[in-house]
Amino acid sequence: MTRINTVAIVGGTHGNERTGVALVSKWLTNPTLISRDSFQATALLGNPLAVKKNQRYIDEDLNRAFSLQRLNQPPVPTWEAYRAEQLNQILGPKLAKPKYDFILDLHTTTATMGKTLIIYQQPFNLQLAKFLQTHYPEFNIYLSDKQQKETIGLQSIAPMSALLELGPIAHGIVHHDLFLQMEDITYRILDFIDQMNQEKLHLTGKLEVYRRGDQVIPYPKNSCGEINGMIHRDLQDRNFLEIRQGDPLFVTYDGDVLSYQQHPGYPVFINEAAYCEKDIAFRLSKKTVIELN
Amino acid sequence: MTRINTVAIVGGTHGNERTGVALVSKWLTNPTLISRDSFQATALLGNPLAVKKNQRYIDEDLNRAFSLQRLNQPPVPTWEAYRAEQLNQILGPKLAKPKYDFILDLHTTTATMGKTLIIYQQPFNLQLAKFLQTHYPEFNIYLSDKQQKETIGLQSIAPMSALLELGPIAHGIVHHDLFLQMEDITYRILDFIDQMNQEKLHLTGKLEVYRRGDQVIPYPKNSCGEINGMIHRDLQDRNFLEIRQGDPLFVTYDGDVLSYQQHPGYPVFINEAAYCEKDIAFRLSKKTVIELN
Repeated sequence: MTRINTVAIVGGTHGNERTGVALVSKWLTNPTLISRDSFQATALLGNPLAVKKNQRYIDEDLNRAFSLQRLNQPPVPTWEAYRAEQLNQILGPKLAKPKYDFILDLHTTTATMGKTLIIYQQPFNLQLAKFLQTHYPEFNIYLSDKQQKETIGLQSIAPMSALLELGPIAHGIVHHDLFLQMEDITYRILDFIDQMNQEKLHLTGKLEVYRRGDQVIPYPKNSCGEINGMIHRDLQDRNFLEIRQGDPLFVTYDGDVLSYQQHPGYPVFINEAAYCEKDIAFRLSKKTVIELN
Repeated sequence: MTRINTVAIVGGTHGNERTGVALVSKWLTNPTLISRDSFQATALLGNPLAVKKNQRYIDEDLNRAFSLQRLNQPPVPTWEAYRAEQLNQILGPKLAKPKYDFILDLHTTTATMGKTLIIYQQPFNLQLAKFLQTHYPEFNIYLSDKQQKETIGLQSIAPMSALLELGPIAHGIVHHDLFLQMEDITYRILDFIDQMNQEKLHLTGKLEVYRRGDQVIPYPKNSCGEINGMIHRDLQDRNFLEIRQGDPLFVTYDGDVLSYQQHPGYPVFINEAAYCEKDIAFRLSKKTVIELN
């Protein structure tokens, strides 16, 4: 497998997801904590200006600003376009000769996503997923439906990457427990890379994953197009659990229950605050099992 | 006691506290739900522009913009100063001949404040507090250390008022359970006012309250003045519970525990996201018992 010589750990790609921000601050003063024998690691803030303001972004979502098309054109006049170009220089350039082989992007969510790893489907990443599940059986593995070239997130700058998503936690604050959890998981991911570099590891067996789908479920609206309902209490917090036809999805403010009318699916990012502006109540994924040989 | 003829129920004084926003939307289409025999009730949004953007405020905190001094001078050029003047015309004018006798201001918090009523110390309000505790024994009563004249919150427009604070919930989202809770509590408060108007109610006995103090506890900092720690896991979620000398307060990102070094106190608003910018990790209150005769 590919040898990884350089790792970038990014916190604060969204400025109000403070757990990663706090950890980057720790690692900048204690860089040995993230150093391993077989590679060089660097910690940095994704969106320092948004971090300073404790908000998700200044002008637009940084984690949607890394399409090849945008990176190869003069940037649109937003702070995040400027920062995306900077990061592409610092960590990339994407799909050319990137300075970093692996990016670990640290996120939190208001959704009850537990411990979730978001990755492209690649042999290295599936090994990482299996490795994490041996340490934390409850880890959810969420597979992107695209590869590096087609995606627009910060992690797509590097040829190899993973995005860690922990929740629930409100935006704008740090919780001690979640901080320790993110720290511990990060060290395990670094240990994994180190072991892979030394060709000490090859995991086999079944791996349960959730494949990202295109389908997003919007909030219910009244006849004027205004949101008039919310996630039903029976769906709230039930990410990665199957929903079937007839299951309650929403309840309107007036108390009417709206139920699911499609093929079975697996909701993710239920009630993520940052997705309200995109009118995404949750996203549907598909569960599948991959055999690692 | 004073008879209350007009009640204003305000949601979205902070635009990202969505539970009150959703309820106001419900009551605007179903006004009979908040009507009672002995008074007129109106629901309205405190900060519609911030609600539209799903953020706490546009330029400054609306809930700190109602000092008499500010209301009686030409407004400073911020959206919230403009909106404060509007609200003072719609609901007030404050301390002159206000159009509304009672304001109920609906808030949520990322802190684990449970069900908390924030009131001035007045006989009517203490009756309300006792009434709510008979229905929900777990209700926390938080007494302002000032009276209407000296305070700067939206509720200070009216001679009588209460602020409802429910949490924890992330900013920017609605949870079904909390929505139902806030709705039920609001109806009980309206029922209370109705019963008081009809002189049907007089409660006696002991009332446990928390008095707001001036003391706020800032986050720990490094020698450069940057925050380098977080609320300790043993303090997180323990609002309204006594802390004593030696109890853990914070843990630095490096793992050092910082403990409490003062007289016993009762923390409130522990890890409220909106208070980070004010550098308030939590506020200290004092517990006391009032005898209602």
